Amino acid sequence: MTMADPRLSMNQATIKHAGLAEALRITAGGGLQAIGLWREPVHDVGLATAAKMLADSGLRFSSLCRGGFVTAPEGAERRAAIDENRRAIEETATLAAAGAPGSAAVLVLVAGGVPEGSRDLVAARDRVADALAELAPVAASAGVTLAIEPLHPMYAADRAVVSTLGQALDLAAPFVPAVVGVVVDTFHVWWDPDVLPQIARAGREGRLASYQVCDWKAPLAADVLLARHYPGDGVIDFGPMTRAVLATGYRGDVEVEIFNAEVWATSRDEVVTRTAAGFAEAVSPHLAAAAVG
Amino acid sequence: MTMADPRLSMNQATIKHAGLAEALRITAGGGLQAIGLWREPVHDVGLATAAKMLADSGLRFSSLCRGGFVTAPEGAERRAAIDENRRAIEETATLAAAGAPGSAAVLVLVAGGVPEGSRDLVAARDRVADALAELAPVAASAGVTLAIEPLHPMYAADRAVVSTLGQALDLAAPFVPAVVGVVVDTFHVWWDPDVLPQIARAGREGRLASYQVCDWKAPLAADVLLARHYPGDGVIDFGPMTRAVLATGYRGDVEVEIFNAEVWATSRDEVVTRTAAGFAEAVSPHLAAAAVG
Repeated sequence: MTMADPRLSMNQATIKHAGLAEALRITAGGGLQAIGLWREPVHDVGLATAAKMLADSGLRFSSLCRGGFVTAPEGAERRAAIDENRRAIEETATLAAAGAPGSAAVLVLVAGGVPEGSRDLVAARDRVADALAELAPVAASAGVTLAIEPLHPMYAADRAVVSTLGQALDLAAPFVPAVVGVVVDTFHVWWDPDVLPQIARAGREGRLASYQVCDWKAPLAADVLLARHYPGDGVIDFGPMTRAVLATGYRGDVEVEIFNAEVWATSRDEVVTRTAAGFAEAVSPHLAAAAVG
Repeated sequence: MTMADPRLSMNQATIKHAGLAEALRITAGGGLQAIGLWREPVHDVGLATAAKMLADSGLRFSSLCRGGFVTAPEGAERRAAIDENRRAIEETATLAAAGAPGSAAVLVLVAGGVPEGSRDLVAARDRVADALAELAPVAASAGVTLAIEPLHPMYAADRAVVSTLGQALDLAAPFVPAVVGVVVDTFHVWWDPDVLPQIARAGREGRLASYQVCDWKAPLAADVLLARHYPGDGVIDFGPMTRAVLATGYRGDVEVEIFNAEVWATSRDEVVTRTAAGFAEAVSPHLAAAAVG
């Protein structure tokens, strides 16, 4: 067993077609110490069983993907989405308690897009704020941090009306930092001319709940949801953002989350190996420099 | 001949496969009063001939696409790009003089992407600033406005390291507004939570040189360069941005620029008809309201 960077966490989406048992086994087997889980494979085995499997794996739990999708107007669809988020909050608390020491009770929130048939981006954003107000007390009771993830603006119509870190921080502002924070994912924010000041702001405001890394490469995959690459395979310079994240005092795990049909088509052990190697080359030097400094 | 909105200008890219003669003919024939030209079809007939053809068409000239692509480091490639921009400036001046009264001597600038093999987005942006400093005196002599167009962040790697209107305005700031301005294209900036304040800022700073409209629809085309749609066919609400543009005092033409393989595959007369109809439905009401107000 090789040793991977101790901060590296495998986001389960990177090995999408693995069930929970296999995901835990190959992540630990690849020398990683942490994993970020997705709800669907947890549901496949049931929450209690998933928590036991996670505990047995010895891995830290770095986040649960995902909650959110709360842009629908008031009505049955919105109520169902809110209820789904309540369940996700409980799952996050359970899994964080089951993970190894240093686990993070973080639920990643993806806002949701402009509702079908609507053109009102501003109203959709306002409904994200409303949902946070409704869910924050639930998260606070459960000891869970709701982590708003700004997604790349190319997903604004159909997936996330929260497109920048600044916007995510504005949405988080009315709430206690331990209850509502933000996610920095390099793929989504690397282009933003304001990204480094906003990471610093996230630090000042105590809201940096998760740091995720993967790379951007042109041309994009035909399905832009699957356009993510191993760190080092694209154009992102991981130095400035990683140093900015560490300068905030963030010492949590760093997830690699890759949606990519080619990655998913390769053997899962190879994916873990490639992830660890890409991370070691493109990200670890910046983590190490900060640790020394 | 139907009458189109008097402010509507057909950007030649929307009827991409038409030569200059046909583009002028069907634009005027569709009842439009203005056209935005591309350099390649102008070169195909030669500048002097193109200017005469434009004058004969009776159309206003709303902009030339495009200059820019100035992110290469110093060397032969960069010198060639700067020279190409000098020529584009001269072409813009000639065409604006040949167009009907109300023509705009506007050269649209697309910054260029991160150079091949580089990961230094910040350096690429700095080289755009350097290029503006070099080209601004040329543009000033020619009476041409260099209009920086922020492109959607999904093009940051390979096409434009200028991704927001705020960033474009920051780049323009050192120069006289008549010489360096900005373009607002709804497709590129609709997602930006800061877009309306930045349009107002463009107005205060006297830098709004061009307003372009087309729509965004998910899922994106497999080639994201070709993902643009007729106004009204997607999720963009043209009201707030159009009203903000008019509130700046902008009274120039409004171009429709659509890159879309399906649009290009339909008959060009139909494209002109659909463009005028989409504009009339989705954009004109907001122009008319401002004219009355």
